[in-house]
Amino acid sequence: MNPAPPPVGVWRPVLERALAEDLAEAGDITTDAVVPGDASASGRIVAREAGVVAGLGIATATFGLLDRRVVVDVEVVDGAHVSAGTTLAIVSGPARPILTGERVALNLLGRMCGIATRTAEVVAAVAGTKAVVAATRKTTPGLRALEKYAVRCGGGTTHRFGLHDGVLIKDNHIVVVGSVMAAVVAARLAIGHLTKVEVEVTNPTQLDEALAAGADVILLDNMDLGELRAAVRQAAGRAVLEASGGITPETVAAVAATGVDVVSLGWLTHSASALDVALDLEDTTES
Amino acid sequence: MNPAPPPVGVWRPVLERALAEDLAEAGDITTDAVVPGDASASGRIVAREAGVVAGLGIATATFGLLDRRVVVDVEVVDGAHVSAGTTLAIVSGPARPILTGERVALNLLGRMCGIATRTAEVVAAVAGTKAVVAATRKTTPGLRALEKYAVRCGGGTTHRFGLHDGVLIKDNHIVVVGSVMAAVVAARLAIGHLTKVEVEVTNPTQLDEALAAGADVILLDNMDLGELRAAVRQAAGRAVLEASGGITPETVAAVAATGVDVVSLGWLTHSASALDVALDLEDTTES
Amino acid sequence: MNPAPPPVGVWRPVLERALAEDLAEAGDITTDAVVPGDASASGRIVAREAGVVAGLGIATATFGLLDRRVVVDVEVVDGAHVSAGTTLAIVSGPARPILTGERVALNLLGRMCGIATRTAEVVAAVAGTKAVVAATRKTTPGLRALEKYAVRCGGGTTHRFGLHDGVLIKDNHIVVVGSVMAAVVAARLAIGHLTKVEVEVTNPTQLDEALAAGADVILLDNMDLGELRAAVRQAAGRAVLEASGGITPETVAAVAATGVDVVSLGWLTHSASALDVALDLEDTTES
Amino acid sequence: MNPAPPPVGVWRPVLERALAEDLAEAGDITTDAVVPGDASASGRIVAREAGVVAGLGIATATFGLLDRRVVVDVEVVDGAHVSAGTTLAIVSGPARPILTGERVALNLLGRMCGIATRTAEVVAAVAGTKAVVAATRKTTPGLRALEKYAVRCGGGTTHRFGLHDGVLIKDNHIVVVGSVMAAVVAARLAIGHLTKVEVEVTNPTQLDEALAAGADVILLDNMDLGELRAAVRQAAGRAVLEASGGITPETVAAVAATGVDVVSLGWLTHSASALDVALDLEDTTES
Amino acid sequence: MNPAPPPVGVWRPVLERALAEDLAEAGDITTDAVVPGDASASGRIVAREAGVVAGLGIATATFGLLDRRVVVDVEVVDGAHVSAGTTLAIVSGPARPILTGERVALNLLGRMCGIATRTAEVVAAVAGTKAVVAATRKTTPGLRALEKYAVRCGGGTTHRFGLHDGVLIKDNHIVVVGSVMAAVVAARLAIGHLTKVEVEVTNPTQLDEALAAGADVILLDNMDLGELRAAVRQAAGRAVLEASGGITPETVAAVAATGVDVVSLGWLTHSASALDVALDLEDTTES
Amino acid sequence: MNPAPPPVGVWRPVLERALAEDLAEAGDITTDAVVPGDASASGRIVAREAGVVAGLGIATATFGLLDRRVVVDVEVVDGAHVSAGTTLAIVSGPARPILTGERVALNLLGRMCGIATRTAEVVAAVAGTKAVVAATRKTTPGLRALEKYAVRCGGGTTHRFGLHDGVLIKDNHIVVVGSVMAAVVAARLAIGHLTKVEVEVTNPTQLDEALAAGADVILLDNMDLGELRAAVRQAAGRAVLEASGGITPETVAAVAATGVDVVSLGWLTHSASALDVALDLEDTTES
Repeated sequence: MNPAPPPVGVWRPVLERALAEDLAEAGDITTDAVVPGDASASGRIVAREAGVVAGLGIATATFGLLDRRVVVDVEVVDGAHVSAGTTLAIVSGPARPILTGERVALNLLGRMCGIATRTAEVVAAVAGTKAVVAATRKTTPGLRALEKYAVRCGGGTTHRFGLHDGVLIKDNHIVVVGSVMAAVVAARLAIGHLTKVEVEVTNPTQLDEALAAGADVILLDNMDLGELRAAVRQAAGRAVLEASGGITPETVAAVAATGVDVVSLGWLTHSASALDVALDLEDTTES
Repeated sequence: MNPAPPPVGVWRPVLERALAEDLAEAGDITTDAVVPGDASASGRIVAREAGVVAGLGIATATFGLLDRRVVVDVEVVDGAHVSAGTTLAIVSGPARPILTGERVALNLLGRMCGIATRTAEVVAAVAGTKAVVAATRKTTPGLRALEKYAVRCGGGTTHRFGLHDGVLIKDNHIVVVGSVMAAVVAARLAIGHLTKVEVEVTNPTQLDEALAAGADVILLDNMDLGELRAAVRQAAGRAVLEASGGITPETVAAVAATGVDVVSLGWLTHSASALDVALDLEDTTES
Repeated sequence: MNPAPPPVGVWRPVLERALAEDLAEAGDITTDAVVPGDASASGRIVAREAGVVAGLGIATATFGLLDRRVVVDVEVVDGAHVSAGTTLAIVSGPARPILTGERVALNLLGRMCGIATRTAEVVAAVAGTKAVVAATRKTTPGLRALEKYAVRCGGGTTHRFGLHDGVLIKDNHIVVVGSVMAAVVAARLAIGHLTKVEVEVTNPTQLDEALAAGADVILLDNMDLGELRAAVRQAAGRAVLEASGGITPETVAAVAATGVDVVSLGWLTHSASALDVALDLEDTTES
Repeated sequence: MNPAPPPVGVWRPVLERALAEDLAEAGDITTDAVVPGDASASGRIVAREAGVVAGLGIATATFGLLDRRVVVDVEVVDGAHVSAGTTLAIVSGPARPILTGERVALNLLGRMCGIATRTAEVVAAVAGTKAVVAATRKTTPGLRALEKYAVRCGGGTTHRFGLHDGVLIKDNHIVVVGSVMAAVVAARLAIGHLTKVEVEVTNPTQLDEALAAGADVILLDNMDLGELRAAVRQAAGRAVLEASGGITPETVAAVAATGVDVVSLGWLTHSASALDVALDLEDTTES
Repeated sequence: MNPAPPPVGVWRPVLERALAEDLAEAGDITTDAVVPGDASASGRIVAREAGVVAGLGIATATFGLLDRRVVVDVEVVDGAHVSAGTTLAIVSGPARPILTGERVALNLLGRMCGIATRTAEVVAAVAGTKAVVAATRKTTPGLRALEKYAVRCGGGTTHRFGLHDGVLIKDNHIVVVGSVMAAVVAARLAIGHLTKVEVEVTNPTQLDEALAAGADVILLDNMDLGELRAAVRQAAGRAVLEASGGITPETVAAVAATGVDVVSLGWLTHSASALDVALDLEDTTES
Repeated sequence: MNPAPPPVGVWRPVLERALAEDLAEAGDITTDAVVPGDASASGRIVAREAGVVAGLGIATATFGLLDRRVVVDVEVVDGAHVSAGTTLAIVSGPARPILTGERVALNLLGRMCGIATRTAEVVAAVAGTKAVVAATRKTTPGLRALEKYAVRCGGGTTHRFGLHDGVLIKDNHIVVVGSVMAAVVAARLAIGHLTKVEVEVTNPTQLDEALAAGADVILLDNMDLGELRAAVRQAAGRAVLEASGGITPETVAAVAATGVDVVSLGWLTHSASALDVALDLEDTTES
């Protein structure tokens, strides 16, 4: 998987904010104090554990925002599976901006690689079923585009991006509106015929309503495996079925085996641990 | 623990960005389509699992940014330990902004409570030792202030906030400068006598250098338990000692028992899973 | 039509930018010079010609951004058809902010009402056909959300909002990719099954390709009436058909009569003239 | 006319906002799906109808904001009169950013050329009179600098830019202050002798007051041709006279022939239709 | 003098930036550590030396940006002359935001009052001459609107606000263009008849050129008193004359006595010292 | 002194804001009117009086923000002592951006050099004592990082940067908390052992409390020379002592001679006059 990255207008501000919170107005007082302004450095960004790469070009752009003279040679593409010890990129140039930008670059890279890696594991776990693996809107505030991109690097899909680009009628909508039927009909009337309508259901009765109302996609919320299998039989191909709610890497294979079309996991973005990545500067003090 | 929250000028933009990425320009097309503009709703934000609360007032401010008429009654203070099922806040007002803001509010709240909860577990694990638990700069881009605050809600401390407010000479600095001694001396000369100097060391020789150079605080990087105990004996109280590097909730108690003053864990902010929190609207369709 | 307005986070910056370009740093030097700080004023925002209202609440929020004490009573809802001379809103409070904000409020209101009015005329013109009226992405830079909303106030629909929320393969994509077939197949592979695929065609051969490739929606670009009728027969209901390209209020009825499902007009947003709206202050100098 | 364009700090954010509303966070999902990342493209921006060019360099800077590797060769200068079919610029480079930026660039270019073209027509219509053609503050929110520049490209002048840089006492000021005389005198006292004072009048009595009070410029609001001619005689050169209010391209010649010094038309910026401009990519699939 | 303050959209960001640089992301760590969250406080903002007030309402808005519950009672109006010890405002409410905002509020207030005070002294010094006192563009980056306003509070005028709202041909323009005559003629051709033209001259020959070219205002740059008197005679009322260049409070009276119309001093904004203002909290620990 | 400058993310917005307030949306109407777009220019930025340079690279970056083709050759480093008449930088390129950016660049440069120059004078005045010279938080809103940097260029130190990066318990804190002892103890408990604690005292009793409470640094507020000498004796090296409050260049030597460790002067940033710097374009009209 080597998907197109998010627009630069989306990710550059993420880096700028990360630098701003680290540097504030005083800057990197340690580096400014101990490293001469004319010192150079060179080093490798290394994956300390095996995983899937995501955000390498984006995260390493940090250095250039601090000083255009820093050169970054990216060694692998986003989406690549790498083993522990793999050099991901080589960074060289003035020492100060390399030291100052290190943590910001690694924080973002470790997080994005972590999501891609866990996604790839989940995708592998469902191999052999027809289910695709999707992320949800349970993303980190301010990082959705980058986390959705990391999911795609890992082989997942992104479901809708946000509230603005897809219709998903959820449990709380139904509480307010009164019934699945009423909600789906209202959506159909208001939304153009160019947009699909998805609705969340929790039991066979609601599923029947959703099918009768002509929902394009139906989210089966927090159902156990037996309920999911029953739902697949009940729907009989009349709508795309998505299983969601508390699915983890441990449970995903069984869920996918029920015959649903999509399995979606908030876990991928809200609870995946970071991949261990580091910057190892070359010791040039001998030369 | 009920520490002072970050400045409003720091956290409000976080919420605004999260809303912007969810709503873009088209807004919440589902809610606008299915929920009448004059519908009201009321519901409870509930902790689905036990944990420590952090960011409740901040996260629920989301609703007011969408519509000032939404009323939020916060039921517990940040820092409180709550059991599964506890109502954290009651939200009531126009239905549309409540439905639209739900995910943004919960995403932030779940993350912050997750960090506070894991911090509290770690703090409990080191009880009986003199070690304090500190977070690092391995935070989510754009969320440092909120994550550091969550750590404090859980009973941890924040170490330095960023590159701008504390001196920490790290391994890569030493690679560039050539020695612990040279780096600490350079820092002492450049930094005012109002600021403490911390340096990272990996072996007894560097520790000797650091002590000789008069470092105020010494970070013992990636040492095993034996090395840590030896370092504590070697320092003999001449500097504050901080153990860091790969410490997890599983290993932290043993590390603290070596006699170090501070244990710091990047894990708290880069890999803690979110706490499960939800918004349950009341079904008022009967009335 | 009384659709939900865009998010406040979208339209408030539009007003703030408009005020900023009018006021710069020196402010309203005329009003500050001639109107005493304690003078009050009251007046009516009036439609000088008949039309459809759009953006009334949004545009009049201008005054509150200048001074919270200005009170605006909105007299009609967005989407209302009003006759010449109708009072749309009553504005009262301190005279200075009313005078200072007048032009910014009216500029936005006149533009939005103009679009809604022309849209309503076009919708009326296609009554009796099955065609819905859609806007395109040919909107004013920075005002898309407000212009799309004005189209909806006039009874039109919005098609996709932008490049991010819908798939539309256009002529230039096909030039680069090589064929309609190749482009639709590539889109199908990359885009989730939750998203519809639309493709632009210019002749019967491309239309066949599009149908064969399973496009959900097909845009018939710049076809004359005979070509459109032939395309409707050729498609025979296998895809939603949209006529686009150079359609004006004068030609839209004939286009709709060909049997297409959607007629889309860039004209609505790039060339509709503003509605004449004014603020008439009451002459209170007699009292 | 080849006037100096607005500051880059003014127009670059306009492009960035336009890209942001089109791309949001997900980007151009069509182009990313169907066009390979390494595809190249080349094409011409063409005027489909005759007109006056404005904003060519500014609008085509869109592509560089997406990808610095896109090369734009501008073929004509702003202010040039071009015939239908003229190539305005050649765009070449990576295919994706060219396709992604096309609509944003053309939307701005079409609007600016439209204003310049209509302005040039109006300027031609008043040739032979002493009147200069001026725009007003009835501009599109957020685009004033670009629209005022387009007016200048078409041979018009810009009157004051906003509330901050010129004194114009309008009807509503006079309603509040009580009389033309009082308002002009107040302005004279408060405003430095480095600034001219303009006042709006609607009848001969107000005109007398304005002249007596020493107004530098007098706006004759919504007067018919006979009233304008009488005003010119009455003023007898004691002040600059500006005719304004409902003037259209159809009526402007007659208004100018009355002998006024300035004719100003809000029409130029609030109701001029866009010029039809397009991007035609070269079909390179054969080679 | 009680002029209209700058637009809120101009000064609120100044306060927000000042708070941001003081608080960064960690906030006021001292106040948060030592002052309980529920403590209240009340105090007086006092002028420790006599002077003219400027920016009182603006500067004290700082507290409300931190916490809306802080109440500020402003005791004097901008432009007022106050003696040492005068209470300017009373601040009361939660103790934390009062302590946190104190320095930001006082920094701005002291600077603005300093400028107003020195301006008033200069205005007093030229009393009896016809000269008005004007500031220049030699203002603090980011604070021009506030400093120009402070000058007006002190009884001065603001000359042009910036490069955008007035024509002033300076020495370096003349170096590039070649002559005063060429520059003034070029300006006259390009600038509308609604705008005055000012030109800087350094000797009688240039003054002659400027008068012949019809300059409205002529800046006499760095002339000594004899040269100024000669220039006044030479101009004989044909243009407004402004003396500028190195004028200080010590020399301004003599300059004004030469008969020029305007004396302008960069000194007012780039070198005026701050007025000593302080916040004295009431000691409530006894009660 | 040639300290590291603030982060680019801090100072570039300062320049952008300064350009924005000078240019607004209309730009430099004089230069655009009188200087041809293809004219070139070259000139020298000159110190008209002797002083210490600060901010030269930062201030002259202004030109590049307007037009990348302007070339700036910096002739001296920040921190250099220069005599009157010294060329600081040579600026060459297109004439328009050089003329347009001149004032913004010089305003910032003059202010920063002014602060550095006065700081250097103060540092020289205390030579021979052990006191270091520190600035305070009494800086210009929005310019703190640049002013603190200027202080360092002049040989001073920066004390804490803001409220966020150092603990200083001030008089008003003590009023609220009740005693020096209570405040210091509270700070000690809340603040990590990695941070020093400073407290302000006004008399020997408070000094005793502060020493007893273990304050690391003690600010002696507004004490006369005798009181300072007594305090030095009383402290006897148990804490770092800082004298502050109303110290001026005239009084600083005597204060330093009392034996305190630090003298801090708000005067350096709130009342230092600007250094006189100018841009002299070469007259190339002869060639």
